Amino acid sequence: MRITLRVIGIGPGGPRQVTLQAIDAMSDVDAFLALEKGTAKSGLLDARRVILDAHAREGYSLVEIPDPPRDRAPADYDAEVRRWHAARADLIATALRDEVGDGGVAAFLVWGDPALYDSTLRIVDDLSARDDLELTVEVIPGVTSASALTAAHGIVANRVGEPIHITTGRRLADTPAGADANQIVMLDADLAFRHTADPDDHIWWGAYVGTDDEILISGRVGDVTGQIVEARADARERIGWIMDIYLLRKASRPA
Amino acid sequence: MRITLRVIGIGPGGPRQVTLQAIDAMSDVDAFLALEKGTAKSGLLDARRVILDAHAREGYSLVEIPDPPRDRAPADYDAEVRRWHAARADLIATALRDEVGDGGVAAFLVWGDPALYDSTLRIVDDLSARDDLELTVEVIPGVTSASALTAAHGIVANRVGEPIHITTGRRLADTPAGADANQIVMLDADLAFRHTADPDDHIWWGAYVGTDDEILISGRVGDVTGQIVEARADARERIGWIMDIYLLRKASRPA
Repeated sequence: MRITLRVIGIGPGGPRQVTLQAIDAMSDVDAFLALEKGTAKSGLLDARRVILDAHAREGYSLVEIPDPPRDRAPADYDAEVRRWHAARADLIATALRDEVGDGGVAAFLVWGDPALYDSTLRIVDDLSARDDLELTVEVIPGVTSASALTAAHGIVANRVGEPIHITTGRRLADTPAGADANQIVMLDADLAFRHTADPDDHIWWGAYVGTDDEILISGRVGDVTGQIVEARADARERIGWIMDIYLLRKASRPA
Repeated sequence: MRITLRVIGIGPGGPRQVTLQAIDAMSDVDAFLALEKGTAKSGLLDARRVILDAHAREGYSLVEIPDPPRDRAPADYDAEVRRWHAARADLIATALRDEVGDGGVAAFLVWGDPALYDSTLRIVDDLSARDDLELTVEVIPGVTSASALTAAHGIVANRVGEPIHITTGRRLADTPAGADANQIVMLDADLAFRHTADPDDHIWWGAYVGTDDEILISGRVGDVTGQIVEARADARERIGWIMDIYLLRKASRPA
């Protein structure tokens, strides 16, 4: 079975942050596949629906694929992620056979950019290895949540000449000295900077960046940490889910 | 004098990689300011003109500001960059007074995203400090050349859980061990990976990514380095300028 499979970056959440290339790529899709993360993230599914209603062809099909259960505190993190990806790929292969069919075009919409802490392309690699699927994969880049964060704060990601390190809350404490002048931290449910940053470091934090619910807080870590903790908890409670990101900048420049 | 100054990310070069938000932001601009880098980069100025012709209002004004001379091998790199930015800011302040005027809207179009190795926002900070200009600054995020590179190669920027380090050719040799699993290297006229990478590391290289001139080469560093050196020199000669970027991935995963 031959299928064109598009992985389309649609930006960090605002419906106007979609590119013309993404709109082109949505125009002739037979079935959009959505990995359903459960009711907690229903706000994101609604936002995706708004984008599809605006740009997909009339009567488009949206296939919601339930997310298989995942162990969030496994003994072997990487092995558990791989197992979970394989289970998702099984469900998607079934959807491609049943809902798209030979010669059809399927697409995933990915928040932000498909290359940055998103597992869709890893799932597609699993799918491509299956004997009965002959996939032509097309990837459309999108605006990252990191770019949306820095734009919302009106800042450049680094001081002149410095590198930028992108990491997760889980790995933040592992960043070696000399790589930590500017860190963009994603997927951090625990606000791990509280355990790694100096009070004089600067943080630019944002939640739901690029959407109507956007919240921005910035300042010296020692001054604004309490404010961020509180705003994050409040918003999560009020909206039911949260997507946040921050840039952490060392007060002292490395030699 | 009150002026709204927009810094608009327009993506890595392809006219369809512009977002709807960027198009909205172009629609009511009185004068677009372009920093003219000289004839060598005229291909980029033409591409900007294509985007403006499609999205700016009829009869829009494009003010080309000559780039002040710059010492490319200074004794104090940071000081020279600051001096050069200040000289550019002087020229821009004059253009804002003469070509935009009180209550007007001016805009810079920035390739890629304004937060990533672009100096426009630093110039805007200089301008905001001037007593006679009261600027309202708006930043529109764009698709980065890093996202365009990974999309063109159909890859994720990292292996599961790993960080991503973004740096320049000049600083590549300074990346500490443990931060170098996945490096995105920008502004590298010398292909510095030749002096830092192991032959077994993997490279994904791209030039003019997202445009009709796109060139992509990937493989084991030990196998493809010669090919990249040759393709880069050929393209630069043929087209007159080059814009390239690469992702370098360590063969061995850190413990």
